[in-house]
Amino acid sequence: MALLPDHLLAGHDAFMSGRYAAEEARYRALAREGQAPETMVIACCDSRAAPEIIFDSAPGELFVVRNVANLVPPFGPNDDYHGTSAAIEFAVVGLKVKNILILGHGRCGGIKAALTEGGDPLSPADFIGRWMSLVDEPARGVAAIADLTATERQTALERISIRYSINNLRSFPYVAEREAAGELAIHGAWFDISTGELWAMDPVSGDFQRPNVDAERAA
Amino acid sequence: MALLPDHLLAGHDAFMSGRYAAEEARYRALAREGQAPETMVIACCDSRAAPEIIFDSAPGELFVVRNVANLVPPFGPNDDYHGTSAAIEFAVVGLKVKNILILGHGRCGGIKAALTEGGDPLSPADFIGRWMSLVDEPARGVAAIADLTATERQTALERISIRYSINNLRSFPYVAEREAAGELAIHGAWFDISTGELWAMDPVSGDFQRPNVDAERAA
Amino acid sequence: MALLPDHLLAGHDAFMSGRYAAEEARYRALAREGQAPETMVIACCDSRAAPEIIFDSAPGELFVVRNVANLVPPFGPNDDYHGTSAAIEFAVVGLKVKNILILGHGRCGGIKAALTEGGDPLSPADFIGRWMSLVDEPARGVAAIADLTATERQTALERISIRYSINNLRSFPYVAEREAAGELAIHGAWFDISTGELWAMDPVSGDFQRPNVDAERAA
Amino acid sequence: MALLPDHLLAGHDAFMSGRYAAEEARYRALAREGQAPETMVIACCDSRAAPEIIFDSAPGELFVVRNVANLVPPFGPNDDYHGTSAAIEFAVVGLKVKNILILGHGRCGGIKAALTEGGDPLSPADFIGRWMSLVDEPARGVAAIADLTATERQTALERISIRYSINNLRSFPYVAEREAAGELAIHGAWFDISTGELWAMDPVSGDFQRPNVDAERAA
Repeated sequence: MALLPDHLLAGHDAFMSGRYAAEEARYRALAREGQAPETMVIACCDSRAAPEIIFDSAPGELFVVRNVANLVPPFGPNDDYHGTSAAIEFAVVGLKVKNILILGHGRCGGIKAALTEGGDPLSPADFIGRWMSLVDEPARGVAAIADLTATERQTALERISIRYSINNLRSFPYVAEREAAGELAIHGAWFDISTGELWAMDPVSGDFQRPNVDAERAA
Repeated sequence: MALLPDHLLAGHDAFMSGRYAAEEARYRALAREGQAPETMVIACCDSRAAPEIIFDSAPGELFVVRNVANLVPPFGPNDDYHGTSAAIEFAVVGLKVKNILILGHGRCGGIKAALTEGGDPLSPADFIGRWMSLVDEPARGVAAIADLTATERQTALERISIRYSINNLRSFPYVAEREAAGELAIHGAWFDISTGELWAMDPVSGDFQRPNVDAERAA
Repeated sequence: MALLPDHLLAGHDAFMSGRYAAEEARYRALAREGQAPETMVIACCDSRAAPEIIFDSAPGELFVVRNVANLVPPFGPNDDYHGTSAAIEFAVVGLKVKNILILGHGRCGGIKAALTEGGDPLSPADFIGRWMSLVDEPARGVAAIADLTATERQTALERISIRYSINNLRSFPYVAEREAAGELAIHGAWFDISTGELWAMDPVSGDFQRPNVDAERAA
Repeated sequence: MALLPDHLLAGHDAFMSGRYAAEEARYRALAREGQAPETMVIACCDSRAAPEIIFDSAPGELFVVRNVANLVPPFGPNDDYHGTSAAIEFAVVGLKVKNILILGHGRCGGIKAALTEGGDPLSPADFIGRWMSLVDEPARGVAAIADLTATERQTALERISIRYSINNLRSFPYVAEREAAGELAIHGAWFDISTGELWAMDPVSGDFQRPNVDAERAA
């Protein structure tokens, strides 16, 4: 068996002769001095919505958690393993990031699963069912409106879930403290895979709008 | 407050006029037809080690989980929220990926924390401490070897933890079944931030080597 | 008292020296030969959403009904006066238009009123309350989802009401017959006052999308 | 099927690059601040007589009802749907417009239908017949005058019906109250499609005259 799939080997070769060659000094400095990203992004695992691509970001720029449907569970320390909560603690208390962005996107498979009531779980363990139960309540609410199309229900829950994750984020004491002190800003955004557009959440109303096109709406 | 930090807005503008403009047809097709990535990557949140950059990957190519230190907990369904396990279930049972890569990297802050015995937790909740306890046993073992330098201890635990995660991955029944059926291949790799090199794990020996440079060693 | 408000007199002077002067031959022909518009538009009274402006249309191009919230009541002939139904009959049976467009828009005051449960009616006669009761059912459904922002609820009902009006339109026997015969096409669209964008309804899914930007979504 | 007829898509493109581009700030302000039109126009659906074109009006300037033959039914609240009455209530009580203009025009198909006695209804539902019965009495009167030409009968009924609609408008209590208080002015006008001329109704005599050309007559 090959050590790595061909597409990864070829991709890494392209990286070495392309981006690494162009940014070698930066990589060496980042290795020497450690990372100091200003922004944490909590994004989805979806292969079409990588934050580093959507934001054309440089190495060292974004500290990134990716889980299914870019969810943040409520603060709830116990003996279990909490990967997302650990990453938040590391970013906020350790790295002292200045921004956290919850980045959702359209056509999210996790959100779709949450809207599919009574469907069979993917496996008896039902990790996805349990994980997506974080938005069970709004999923039921949205699913109950028969007058919405399937796409409208999906988009609605994708955006509601970003607001839910932001609320859960604020249940972490150090997040709330740093935000209150003006040291941390929390943002939400929704990426449209088809058009490439980014819709940013208005922090007051919770509405999503395109920062350039819709700039004056927020005024 | 601005809807999004300036560096993200500028980055998205660059994406729209650059990569999106060049790959619009691909994005539209991915939106229309859904994602079908062949490869899942479990990587670290570190801002210097984004898989899409390291593998110069296209939209739709990689399904990516990122958590602190690219760890996989053992299979353990219960009432709690398990983000990484949910993503594995989604990728293996839902998307039927053909490859899973555990991608570690050098100078990992999570691994460093695991090696710092007796240090204060980042917060009373100690999510990081609990999360990194997944490699507590090898961390104690490595820390006990006084003859290793600090860097050697760090690299050793980074690579051991990749092998641990691969073992834990195989505790998921559907992973083991699909691997046994030849439908799923599991890989490990370690990225050197400073040199840009990628070290791939030999599936038999567990050793890490550079696929091109070190190919003959393994021969 | 002036015969007409100044702004109307000045506007008509501008029309005479501008558009009428430029299109005099067309106006004379339209007067001589009668109107033969291919398209009927059912639009809102809102001062910001005139179809002739949004579609930059020529005299003779659009047969236009305008009522609050661009609603179509269900087919229900009786002794009362039915202005919108009369216009539909005139357009479809008399003028034999080939297209009917229901044109909604954002920030619609009628839709907002429908979402304001328990508010005082504008007057004891409550014509608006009764008129907007055409979308009472979906208004209650949408209003029940506390997790939607006010704007999201408003947009949802604006779009649902377009689909309701299209359904009601099909309850007119001659509309249904001509559509079945391929002689009449029914469309829905939603105008964004702020950005000027037009979102067209997909006839199969009912979703709204921008014809240019989102063209491939519908494919 | 195309989402929208070509002429509408092309027209909206022209709007975006023309009028919207030129008045973007106005549109954004109107979206942000809401509409506040000073004038309501009750006009005909006729494709040749759009108020926004005849009055070269700006977005936000005119609140417009359009029905067949620009009629106002008498005040008569009941359980039925009254689109025109609802719009009047919204404009007068909600928006507090300062002017209402009943705008008729020549060669009106609805008026022509009212004058065609004994003709077949357009459909068994006969919405048009019932709607135009609002001017049945004067239609019979005019039709009985054999010495008038067909065109003279038509113009006569077009102008009579404007005066009828003004009378019906005053049967709405809030209209009468606001007019008596000097807060609302009611106007009538008749548009000549062929010449582009606008004839305004003298509020005292009920005569129609061209405000500029005929000004001295009224003096």
